[in-house]
Amino acid sequence: MDKERYERGWEKLRQIHGEEGERFIENVKSVAPDLARFIVEFGFGDVYSRPGLDIKTREIVTVAALTALGNAQPQLKVHIQAALNVGCSHEEMVEVMTQLAVYAGFPAALNGIGLVKQVFEDVDKKRT
Amino acid sequence: MDKERYERGWEKLRQIHGEEGERFIENVKSVAPDLARFIVEFGFGDVYSRPGLDIKTREIVTVAALTALGNAQPQLKVHIQAALNVGCSHEEMVEVMTQLAVYAGFPAALNGIGLVKQVFEDVDKKRT
Amino acid sequence: MDKERYERGWEKLRQIHGEEGERFIENVKSVAPDLARFIVEFGFGDVYSRPGLDIKTREIVTVAALTALGNAQPQLKVHIQAALNVGCSHEEMVEVMTQLAVYAGFPAALNGIGLVKQVFEDVDKKRT
Amino acid sequence: MDKERYERGWEKLRQIHGEEGERFIENVKSVAPDLARFIVEFGFGDVYSRPGLDIKTREIVTVAALTALGNAQPQLKVHIQAALNVGCSHEEMVEVMTQLAVYAGFPAALNGIGLVKQVFEDVDKKRT
Amino acid sequence: MDKERYERGWEKLRQIHGEEGERFIENVKSVAPDLARFIVEFGFGDVYSRPGLDIKTREIVTVAALTALGNAQPQLKVHIQAALNVGCSHEEMVEVMTQLAVYAGFPAALNGIGLVKQVFEDVDKKRT
Amino acid sequence: MDKERYERGWEKLRQIHGEEGERFIENVKSVAPDLARFIVEFGFGDVYSRPGLDIKTREIVTVAALTALGNAQPQLKVHIQAALNVGCSHEEMVEVMTQLAVYAGFPAALNGIGLVKQVFEDVDKKRT
Repeated sequence: MDKERYERGWEKLRQIHGEEGERFIENVKSVAPDLARFIVEFGFGDVYSRPGLDIKTREIVTVAALTALGNAQPQLKVHIQAALNVGCSHEEMVEVMTQLAVYAGFPAALNGIGLVKQVFEDVDKKRT
Repeated sequence: MDKERYERGWEKLRQIHGEEGERFIENVKSVAPDLARFIVEFGFGDVYSRPGLDIKTREIVTVAALTALGNAQPQLKVHIQAALNVGCSHEEMVEVMTQLAVYAGFPAALNGIGLVKQVFEDVDKKRT
Repeated sequence: MDKERYERGWEKLRQIHGEEGERFIENVKSVAPDLARFIVEFGFGDVYSRPGLDIKTREIVTVAALTALGNAQPQLKVHIQAALNVGCSHEEMVEVMTQLAVYAGFPAALNGIGLVKQVFEDVDKKRT
Repeated sequence: MDKERYERGWEKLRQIHGEEGERFIENVKSVAPDLARFIVEFGFGDVYSRPGLDIKTREIVTVAALTALGNAQPQLKVHIQAALNVGCSHEEMVEVMTQLAVYAGFPAALNGIGLVKQVFEDVDKKRT
Repeated sequence: MDKERYERGWEKLRQIHGEEGERFIENVKSVAPDLARFIVEFGFGDVYSRPGLDIKTREIVTVAALTALGNAQPQLKVHIQAALNVGCSHEEMVEVMTQLAVYAGFPAALNGIGLVKQVFEDVDKKRT
Repeated sequence: MDKERYERGWEKLRQIHGEEGERFIENVKSVAPDLARFIVEFGFGDVYSRPGLDIKTREIVTVAALTALGNAQPQLKVHIQAALNVGCSHEEMVEVMTQLAVYAGFPAALNGIGLVKQVFEDVDKKRT
C-alpha cells in the first residue's frame, strides 16, 4: 500500500465530503476493501489533489457529469453537498442544472434540481 | 418570433462558437427551421446568457456533460473549441477529462482526450 | 417574461398533466423559478403546442424516449399517466414497452411495464 | 427452427426495411447466424408483427428510442428510412427530433436531425 | 405458442432465478402476458440455453452489462443473486465491480457494490 | 511516480494489448501524460493485475460493459482483439453479443457484432 497517496487522498476526501465521506469509505471497505482503497488513493489522492482546476470547479465538473449520466443519484446528492462544502453557492448548483436541461434534457436536470432541493433542506435542518 | 431573445441568443452564439456556430445553425435551419430557432432563443438567448455562472464555467459544465454522455462526439469537439474561445486553457480541458475518468470511466475520458488533441492540432494548423 | 408563450404552455401542461402537473411546476419554482418557467414556456408553450404530431403521438414519443433513457423513472411514470390522459390505451402503453425490449433491452422494458402497472393500479384506486 | 415465425418476420422485415434489410441480415448471418435468426423471428416475427400499435407508430417509437439512446446512429438512420417506407412524413420525423430536444437534450436531437437530413438527401438522389 | 421453447426457457429460468424468478414472471404476466412469454421463450429458451458460454460466464456478462448501464438496479440485484445461484463467488462479484470502476466509472461500480452487499446480507439472513 | 505499479501495469498492458497498446499509451501521453500514467498504474497495475478473476473473464467483463455502454466503439474493438489475445474464441465473443441483445437491446449487440466481424477480418488479413 502506498502510504503517501492514501494519506493525501484521505485528507482530500475529508476536505470535500467530511465525516459522511469517511463513513462511506468504511462501508465500502466492509465488502470490497481494495475498491475502497482505490477510491482514496486514485480518486482523491491522484485525481482530486491535482492542480490545474480549483476544487470548486472540480466539484462542478463532477456534478455536471453525474447529472448527465443520470444513473447515480445517491452520488449526485453527495456531490451537491460536497460542492457546497468547498464553496459553491445554491445559485451555482441551480445554474448547472439549468445548463444541463439544454444538453442532457429536462428530466435529467429536474432530477438534479430535486436533489439540490433535498440538500438545501438538509442544510436548513442542521442549522436549526 | 421573439426578436429580443433571438438577437441576444445570436450574439451569445457568435461569442461562443464564432462563424462555425453560424454555419451550423444555417445547416439545421435547412431541415428543421424551428429547432434551429429554439437553439438560438432557448439555448443561447435564455440559458447561456444567464448570470450566476461565468461563461468559462458554463463551457466546462457542457464539456463535462457531453463527455459523460459519450453519445455526442461532434458536439463535444465543438464545445472543447468553444471552451478555448471563451478563455479555458489546454490544461483545464485535460483536467476535466482526467476528472471524468473517475466518474464516467476511462473510455469516456479517453474519447474526450482524443478530441482535445484534435482541437489543439486544428488550432496549431490555423496559426501556421 | 413572454406572457403568450407562458399562457399557451400552461394550458398545454394542464391538458396533459392536470393538477399534478401544476403542483410539480410549483415545486420546481420553489428552488429554480426560471427552470420552472422554461419548462412551461419552452417545453409546453413552444414544443408540445406544435402541429405536425398529434398529442397522443407526442406522448408516445416521450414515453419511448424516457423508457430508453432509463434514468428518469419518476418522469416516465408521470408521462405514462399523461399518455392515458390524452387518449392512449393500456394496450398501447404495453406495446410501446414490448417494442422497446427489442431496442433498449428487456430490463428497460420491464421497468417501464412496472410503471404501467402502477399507473393502472392508481387509476383503479381513484375509480373506487 | 420455427418456420412460421421466421417467415412472418421475414415478410415484416421486407415491408419495413426493403432490400437493404435483407442485405443487413445476410451480413449478420456471416458472423452470428443465430443472432440474425433471432432478429427475424423475435424482432420482426414476434414483436413488429403484433397488433395494438400500427406500423407507423411502431417506427416512431423505435426512432424516438434510438435517438434518446444516442449510441446506435447506423440503426437510427436505417429506422428513419424505415419510418418513411411505412408512411411517416419528413415533417413527422422533424417533430420527433424537436420533441426529443426537451427530453434527451439538444445534442441527441441534433444528431437525429443530421440523420433525417441524410435520409432525405438519399431519397432525393434516388429520385433523380 | 411454442411449447418446447417455453418449457426449455422455464427450466432455465428456474435454474438461474429459482422461485423468485417464477413470481416475477407471474407479476409481468398480469400486465403484459406476451412480454412475460417472450422473456421465457426468447431470453431463457433461446439465449440463456445456448452452448458456447457456460452459465456462470453468462451471468457475469449480464452483471457487467447491467452495472455499466446503471439504469436497472432491481434487475442487477436479481442477477447478482442469480450469479451466486449458478456458482459465482462473493469475490468474483466484487472483482466484476472493481473492473467496472475502470470502464464505467466509480459511481456505477459503487452502486454495484452496494447491491452485492445487500445480496450477501440477504443470504446470511436466510442461513440463520 | 510509483515504479513498481507502473512496471506491473506496463507488463499487463503488453500481455493484453500488445504493441498496439503501447502505441496508444504513447499517443495519450502526448496530450495528457498523467492520464496515460493512471491508465498504466491504476487500470493495468492495480486492477487488471488482481487475482480473483482470470484474465479471460476480465476481458469478457470489459467487452460486455463496453457493448452495453455503447459509446466507446474504438475501445470496444480494441478489447475484442484483446479478448482474443488472452484466449477467448470467436464463438465466445459472438455469445457475449447475443446475450447482450437481451439486456442492452439488439442495436448495441449488433454494433458489437460488427466490430467482432472487423476484428476477425483483421486477424485473417494478418495471417495471409
